Amino acid sequence: MALLSMDVISVIRTKRDRGELSDQQIDWVIDAYTRGEVADEQMSALAMAILLNGMNRREIARWTAAMIASGERMDFSALSRPTADKHSTGGVGDKITLPLAPLVAACGAAVPQLSGRGLGHTGGTLDKLESIPGWRALLSNEEMLSVLEGTGAVICAAGDGLAPADKKLYALRDVTGTVEAIPLIASSIMSKKIAEGTGSLVLDVKVGTGAFMKTLQDARELASTMVGLGTDHGVKTVALLTDMSTPLGLTAGNALEVRESVEVLAGGGPSDVVELTLALAREMLDAAGVKDADPAKALADGSAMDVWRRMIAAQGGDPDAELPVAREQHVIKAPASGVLTRLDAYGIGVAAWRLGAGRARKEDPVQAGAGVEMHAKPGDTVTEGQPLLTLHTDTPERFEYALESVEGSYDIAAAGTDFTASPVVLERIA
Amino acid sequence: MALLSMDVISVIRTKRDRGELSDQQIDWVIDAYTRGEVADEQMSALAMAILLNGMNRREIARWTAAMIASGERMDFSALSRPTADKHSTGGVGDKITLPLAPLVAACGAAVPQLSGRGLGHTGGTLDKLESIPGWRALLSNEEMLSVLEGTGAVICAAGDGLAPADKKLYALRDVTGTVEAIPLIASSIMSKKIAEGTGSLVLDVKVGTGAFMKTLQDARELASTMVGLGTDHGVKTVALLTDMSTPLGLTAGNALEVRESVEVLAGGGPSDVVELTLALAREMLDAAGVKDADPAKALADGSAMDVWRRMIAAQGGDPDAELPVAREQHVIKAPASGVLTRLDAYGIGVAAWRLGAGRARKEDPVQAGAGVEMHAKPGDTVTEGQPLLTLHTDTPERFEYALESVEGSYDIAAAGTDFTASPVVLERIA
Repeated sequence: MALLSMDVISVIRTKRDRGELSDQQIDWVIDAYTRGEVADEQMSALAMAILLNGMNRREIARWTAAMIASGERMDFSALSRPTADKHSTGGVGDKITLPLAPLVAACGAAVPQLSGRGLGHTGGTLDKLESIPGWRALLSNEEMLSVLEGTGAVICAAGDGLAPADKKLYALRDVTGTVEAIPLIASSIMSKKIAEGTGSLVLDVKVGTGAFMKTLQDARELASTMVGLGTDHGVKTVALLTDMSTPLGLTAGNALEVRESVEVLAGGGPSDVVELTLALAREMLDAAGVKDADPAKALADGSAMDVWRRMIAAQGGDPDAELPVAREQHVIKAPASGVLTRLDAYGIGVAAWRLGAGRARKEDPVQAGAGVEMHAKPGDTVTEGQPLLTLHTDTPERFEYALESVEGSYDIAAAGTDFTASPVVLERIA
Repeated sequence: MALLSMDVISVIRTKRDRGELSDQQIDWVIDAYTRGEVADEQMSALAMAILLNGMNRREIARWTAAMIASGERMDFSALSRPTADKHSTGGVGDKITLPLAPLVAACGAAVPQLSGRGLGHTGGTLDKLESIPGWRALLSNEEMLSVLEGTGAVICAAGDGLAPADKKLYALRDVTGTVEAIPLIASSIMSKKIAEGTGSLVLDVKVGTGAFMKTLQDARELASTMVGLGTDHGVKTVALLTDMSTPLGLTAGNALEVRESVEVLAGGGPSDVVELTLALAREMLDAAGVKDADPAKALADGSAMDVWRRMIAAQGGDPDAELPVAREQHVIKAPASGVLTRLDAYGIGVAAWRLGAGRARKEDPVQAGAGVEMHAKPGDTVTEGQPLLTLHTDTPERFEYALESVEGSYDIAAAGTDFTASPVVLERIA
């Protein structure tokens, strides 16, 4: 009789009433949701109960394993090099993947970087690369392996076969206010990364106003949960907790960030972007077991840039093409002279989003040229009237709305005020 | 821009993060859900957040008002008599509406009783009445008023135009594990009763193993919430908290309960059913402002029975027809002699449901003859081998499954053991 079989309401009630989900309940609910037997409205109620009542380590591990089992697993063991991947929990101006993947490839590891699109105030790696004329994010598994083998690095969209349960659940969480649950964030990220088949993984867990995790404590919990999941599945996993109280680099926006990434690959670029790129490259090479590599040298001698050019070209992009520029600019000038003591990541991220760099709904297009250019970072001295920020958009009616977000997002203190910038890397969890 | 308008995720997040929903948020979300702009999966996440984080009195009042505003309101002010309605939160063997509505009508009030079908282990008034050959639950508003004016009482299904937001939300809660939330139960019941247009309302809030509310404290909170909502909307509202640790009367099942109700209307019937029927009748008549009525006399002299017969006939039913009898019976005998000290409402309710009296899904049919007949109630002396319970079903393969539920549902203590039965009416809240 149907009443004796597993039923979704009893699973929801278990978590609602602060119980532990059994392995059998978890396996069943993930499988039944993927098959469409458990409806969206049932899964969203369960997701809210998980968000509010939590899951323990055993439940999270089983949930992750069930999501991996919902689809195919990739295998890079036939590659001639060890594989290393990186995942960032998302930040403002976080273009690190762009210089990092070719840099690590130039140092001897293979980097299979399955990335996503942006939603909300944090940008998406694929959106950024799509501002390069001709570049394609969608590759078949065969194309992906071929680019990876040929150039050492590939950045592309995850195929539909990888962790389909997560794909469905992620889209659901996005529209039901259930994104911000550490067990669900950890299992979502790790199910994709483990199914992808990377041998090692470095996690960049952002902390601060512009990140999902606003506190070090939450970020530590998320990081150690993910490191545990990766290790349990045989993936060498390390996490860096990094600062996201202020944007990374001097740009937030798609083509703007590609331009800054190319500067880094050319041996220049903002110091915080270079520092984090090198820190993550060293962790990835170490996790992949590559000895005696020198990432700083690979940036300086152009070998990382060579991989970048081959990687972009292999996916149809023209590395020499002019990048799109927004049709309109609006300059915000410093209202006083002194020291810039705060430039808030969330405010700048929302402004870039509102200018057209991000999307409100999954189906929205993004503007390649839109975003925010920063002319100073916390700790810099500024002079009244100098350009502080330049806003870029194709649709100038958005300026006013973006300005609302910029307002209150920065502080200028009297010259000579003591100021110590936050370090880029806050902690390491392994 | 869409981002500036009300959006559902911000509403969900407010409640998820233990905030108070504003009047504007509540009005918008109920209206948008009714129109289909807010999706089921969004509403179920919100319902789970409400279940786990609660709503205050202002939020519940506004939520109720918004559900009333989602549909039409009925108006009985043209009737020649004052109106009184009753609502029970649902119990096992709770056939009280059947004798009560004609009884109160016989005493001079008009009783517009919009009822529901059963789901889970508590029976539904409409399912019970549908065991009478020919009787129709679905009436148009005009037919309903005509039966009410003609006979003094009508028991029928609520029309689709009444609180459609509640109808949609109730069906959603039922499949998402979000039924057991006091704010949602209170607003669901009261929005329908207020929209229905009754002048006064008596609430029968069940407490005990067979009820939604397992504790007096929860029942008090639900009752006082509902009394407050009714009073605020100009409906004179009173609540009785009544015992549901053991079934009401000696039957649980559709035709079985109609038979017992007719016994009460004929001046007989089990004492607990008679006591509760009279207590609720007195409250309804008092709330409706009917003076000098004598409900006990109206049961004894046949005047309540006369209304019953006219009311059943007015909806196509034959009050003299033979009621359906289940094809198979199974007798459970007392395993020992002594005093029956416990007969658990939940266990008996689930047994009746499993025998076919109730439904697991909204679209399931029910068996008219199925259910449980009780040959003793707590406090009665029993002799080893005497019939204790008779199980009735058309589908004897259900006996085993029903027996599982009966097992452990009763206790027999040594003869002479002190036993005090719970009173039927526990408290009154006005």
